[in-house]
Amino acid sequence: MLLGGIEAGGTKMVLAIGDENGNIFEKATIPTDTPDVSVPKMIEFFQGKGIEALGIGCFGPVDLHKDSPTYGYITTTPKPGWSFYDFAGAFRKALNVPVGFDLDVNAAVLGEVTWGAAKDCGVAIYITIGTGVGVGVSVDGKLLHGLIHPEAGHVILTRHPEDTYKGHCPFHGNCLEGMAAGPAVEERWGKKGVELQDNPKVWEIESYYIAQAITNYILCYSPEKVILWGGVMHQEQMFPLIRKQVQEMLAGYLNSPMITEHIDDYIVAPGLGDEPGIKGALRLAYQELL
Amino acid sequence: MLLGGIEAGGTKMVLAIGDENGNIFEKATIPTDTPDVSVPKMIEFFQGKGIEALGIGCFGPVDLHKDSPTYGYITTTPKPGWSFYDFAGAFRKALNVPVGFDLDVNAAVLGEVTWGAAKDCGVAIYITIGTGVGVGVSVDGKLLHGLIHPEAGHVILTRHPEDTYKGHCPFHGNCLEGMAAGPAVEERWGKKGVELQDNPKVWEIESYYIAQAITNYILCYSPEKVILWGGVMHQEQMFPLIRKQVQEMLAGYLNSPMITEHIDDYIVAPGLGDEPGIKGALRLAYQELL
Repeated sequence: MLLGGIEAGGTKMVLAIGDENGNIFEKATIPTDTPDVSVPKMIEFFQGKGIEALGIGCFGPVDLHKDSPTYGYITTTPKPGWSFYDFAGAFRKALNVPVGFDLDVNAAVLGEVTWGAAKDCGVAIYITIGTGVGVGVSVDGKLLHGLIHPEAGHVILTRHPEDTYKGHCPFHGNCLEGMAAGPAVEERWGKKGVELQDNPKVWEIESYYIAQAITNYILCYSPEKVILWGGVMHQEQMFPLIRKQVQEMLAGYLNSPMITEHIDDYIVAPGLGDEPGIKGALRLAYQELL
Repeated sequence: MLLGGIEAGGTKMVLAIGDENGNIFEKATIPTDTPDVSVPKMIEFFQGKGIEALGIGCFGPVDLHKDSPTYGYITTTPKPGWSFYDFAGAFRKALNVPVGFDLDVNAAVLGEVTWGAAKDCGVAIYITIGTGVGVGVSVDGKLLHGLIHPEAGHVILTRHPEDTYKGHCPFHGNCLEGMAAGPAVEERWGKKGVELQDNPKVWEIESYYIAQAITNYILCYSPEKVILWGGVMHQEQMFPLIRKQVQEMLAGYLNSPMITEHIDDYIVAPGLGDEPGIKGALRLAYQELL
């Protein structure tokens, strides 16, 4: 069975032809321009390839309510041309196949639950920390939507005692995205993260915010696996700092060996490398067919 | 069909005989003593009444993993006699009926989703703020468990700028339970909440913490309904303060009319009055029969 997948991001679109087992046979990446530039190129990639369904993991906010007139749309994004754009519809019309549609981080957690580090987990979360922060949540193999969809990257945090930075989020200031996403690191220190690798204070403060958010996610979701990735987490020296601070912040309150003894196997990088999103999109395609 | 229900709390046990439609025919309340005092009295209440199943909504922490050797036990409670007590097993043996078992707040959200304010909601949360803080979560009619079960009453909060109180939680200090549960109010102000009704600063600070936690819950769970109750919330003057602050803290980021326009119908008291927990226990009994 041939399936198509799209990982639609703010800066690039990853496209793939694969199958229901998560194998990828062909892959392409194009920069994200306005829809009238990007979408025809994306359609061209899939045309004539014989895919039976397409799955899209898309940057948000998106409308995931199947009974809504704007289901499958990107909604209130500031990104030029994409606000209230019928993303799923454009591909459904052009390719004439069923289209599965969900948030990018939801596709990523679905990929990880199906084939990756969270395989067989009842509750799993996928956190991506890059230019923004997103959290995807899977409960018994279903993706959490609810009223809109989780926006847990914007949880309000308490400040690090030595941090006077006002925060980068125009809505909340001291939310996780505002304090810890790539643009916040760059604005706080006046340099990009990759240029700050040798300054331990940078990563102490950064991991403090990430650990605090993960502590609250563990308390809220009770996940069996916490998957953590995104551009900022390529600074992998933060993983041990984050794990240690999560244990300190929980302070022994949650009495599970996964947290108290096996935290190295509890808060982890993706099992699918850089492909949880695109593989999750293939899974969305497969689920839409069923 | 006759069903039994138990709402097992730290200070009292509510017992009921009812049916699969949430009707209650007989109800009793006994104080919570040690198991060897309380449990025989509870068994006596149900004996000879012809119930086909029993449901228990129990104070935590509890073991909800059906494949665990301590499934149905209360686990690490400081309450004398109840630590690692086989609560579900005691009633299964004595009454010889199927026993459904879950956390007290999970029973409450189940009651509300089945018959109350969250009827037909895909994602709903029930927050109780009393001597402790608990949060029950229902996703598509199933209760969220995961690794242990949510303990979202312990989420870490940022302090109110005028509040110097250290916090009552021995684990976390400035978590929701530590800053806003009944014992925290009493320790901060030197009086019980009921005696502080005329001091607006008390309820401004109290509602600040509750609103901050609810803001984070909304971002994490994307609930379609937020049900808020417990002894502290009998100070109903806090509902409008909390709703207003949640809107201010979200700052228009979540663009849903439920939040921006209809918040009076979004953050609400239970639809089942003081009975969501005991009615939810009847539902647990029914689900265990199926």
